[in-house]
Amino acid sequence: MKKYHVAVVGVGVVGIEILKCLKSRSFPIANLRVFARSARAIEVEGIEYEVEAIGDERFDGVEIALFAGTEGEKGASKLYAHKFIEKGAIVVDNGADFRLEHDVPLVVPEANRDAVKNHKGLIANPNCTTIQAIVALCGIHREFGLERILLTSFQATSGAGKKAAMKLWEEARTLVNINRNKEFDEIHKDVDSEFDVFSHQIAFNVIPQIGGFAEDGYTSEEWKVVNETHKILNDDSIRISSTCVRVPVFTAHSEAIYFETKKDADHAQIEKVLKDSEGVKYFADSSFPLPLEVEGTDLTYVARLRRDPFNKNCFWIWVVADNLRKGAALNAVQIAEELTK
Amino acid sequence: MKKYHVAVVGVGVVGIEILKCLKSRSFPIANLRVFARSARAIEVEGIEYEVEAIGDERFDGVEIALFAGTEGEKGASKLYAHKFIEKGAIVVDNGADFRLEHDVPLVVPEANRDAVKNHKGLIANPNCTTIQAIVALCGIHREFGLERILLTSFQATSGAGKKAAMKLWEEARTLVNINRNKEFDEIHKDVDSEFDVFSHQIAFNVIPQIGGFAEDGYTSEEWKVVNETHKILNDDSIRISSTCVRVPVFTAHSEAIYFETKKDADHAQIEKVLKDSEGVKYFADSSFPLPLEVEGTDLTYVARLRRDPFNKNCFWIWVVADNLRKGAALNAVQIAEELTK
Repeated sequence: MKKYHVAVVGVGVVGIEILKCLKSRSFPIANLRVFARSARAIEVEGIEYEVEAIGDERFDGVEIALFAGTEGEKGASKLYAHKFIEKGAIVVDNGADFRLEHDVPLVVPEANRDAVKNHKGLIANPNCTTIQAIVALCGIHREFGLERILLTSFQATSGAGKKAAMKLWEEARTLVNINRNKEFDEIHKDVDSEFDVFSHQIAFNVIPQIGGFAEDGYTSEEWKVVNETHKILNDDSIRISSTCVRVPVFTAHSEAIYFETKKDADHAQIEKVLKDSEGVKYFADSSFPLPLEVEGTDLTYVARLRRDPFNKNCFWIWVVADNLRKGAALNAVQIAEELTK
Repeated sequence: MKKYHVAVVGVGVVGIEILKCLKSRSFPIANLRVFARSARAIEVEGIEYEVEAIGDERFDGVEIALFAGTEGEKGASKLYAHKFIEKGAIVVDNGADFRLEHDVPLVVPEANRDAVKNHKGLIANPNCTTIQAIVALCGIHREFGLERILLTSFQATSGAGKKAAMKLWEEARTLVNINRNKEFDEIHKDVDSEFDVFSHQIAFNVIPQIGGFAEDGYTSEEWKVVNETHKILNDDSIRISSTCVRVPVFTAHSEAIYFETKKDADHAQIEKVLKDSEGVKYFADSSFPLPLEVEGTDLTYVARLRRDPFNKNCFWIWVVADNLRKGAALNAVQIAEELTK
């Protein structure tokens, strides 16, 4: 079996998860190099990795480069992806910079693994919110066609990087400390934070904004869900829109998804598709997944399937997945696995 | 101006808010009595109230009785409401027991204040999740008709009573304490709770279940939204369904609401209706309300109005309100105010 010269670029929350996924999935590695802005040594699950400064540009020999670039930190793939490609590497980019470009496949293997073959050196990993919705819905789209999707997200802080998750923790910790000897009715719920992530306090709050606002009132995150879904499912006719909301959870996004099928479908037929869908763990009846339990796992969890009592072929589902794994690192590693087939 | 003999039954989170609302709105009170399971003295905003044991059944002379009965604690109105009514009182009941009964008006003053007149001694206060949706949508229904409503809620813990809000606080506090000297990457996120509210940890988590499950997979909370909306707007043809989710917020529910109008409507027309709607504070453009800021205030805050780019006459809004005030106590006091007119 061929082994590959692999590079991981970026060692933020997603980069760390990529290193874990490569290890746990026994990716066929001949040689692993790790790049970040500055050289240093890091330890992940007891293994030490030597991080090279990316500015040195010694990218020779790399066959597959996984760019971790989280949603918040742009730049590395814009600056360096083409340099890796020029030296012969295939780049899998987790960032948003190239996702919608015509000659860049945007891939969720469960939905469109064959698109990997059309790459011209660069393959894009979709947004976390999109990926788990696609895993849940692609089987239904294949069988019945999707006419309409309405998605409301409950997004974890780590989707905006480690600093954002730490902001949640520090805010909660500060509030506990300043309220130490107070009765419940007297607790002070507002806190100043030193972290320059999010526009507002996230502890004990929800923030209905992820990314910047477009003129039409939608955020960039909400448009990613639309445009990326159209591209991955190769169907611009799906009438999809969303409301994306940050919630005080560390890791794992949850989504309330409402959808309408083109062909007639009943509850049993949709349930059968979900049970058989690749990458999905389906919860029947009144059981459901929780973000706290899902953190650190690889599947997309689908629960609470309900028929809309008033609209034919319309259903609700509840979808939870680890935004750093299936929503980012794992999906990127799965794309890399497709390259090795 | 006539003054009334008023009783408040129940001194949980909603009962306390009713006492505050009666005071802050200068309700015309001749005599105020407070009842609960057991006699005691309580202090609310510096005022002492003598609480009588309801079991003594000395309800003579009460003209208006406000039953606080939160969603979680049923019983008082079932046991005692008719006894107050027999002795001449009009009962406003915040509980769910009588809301759908044919001869009981279910009232959100902004939407259907005239329904108060049809009471036969008992008037019901709707569910918190329903009330704020109705305040936001009733003007739009009046002008354009509502064809369809899809609602996803982000509900605060206090909606399940004080113990539920305390559970969130105690879980957060315990987690901060057990992780006191740990690095962020090593924090332990699961905690055992002594509080027998909710089926799961709510701190740093979201729970897609409020109330019990019906056979069709919807929860009782989700059906309340449907049935109460139909009754209040006096229109069973509105095709409405919802997903109701508990989030780690103390007070103030948020809702992502998608709706379709019957008559043609554009963004400017909907915006105008929202700006003019009674009880609504409308946020234009990219500004929005946060549950943390809304706690303790009386309005229903509507923001993030967006047109669905793919479906005619379809829009999203983001709606936030204090679930204990407009969602419960304030609405009940407003109903009582209608009785005094």
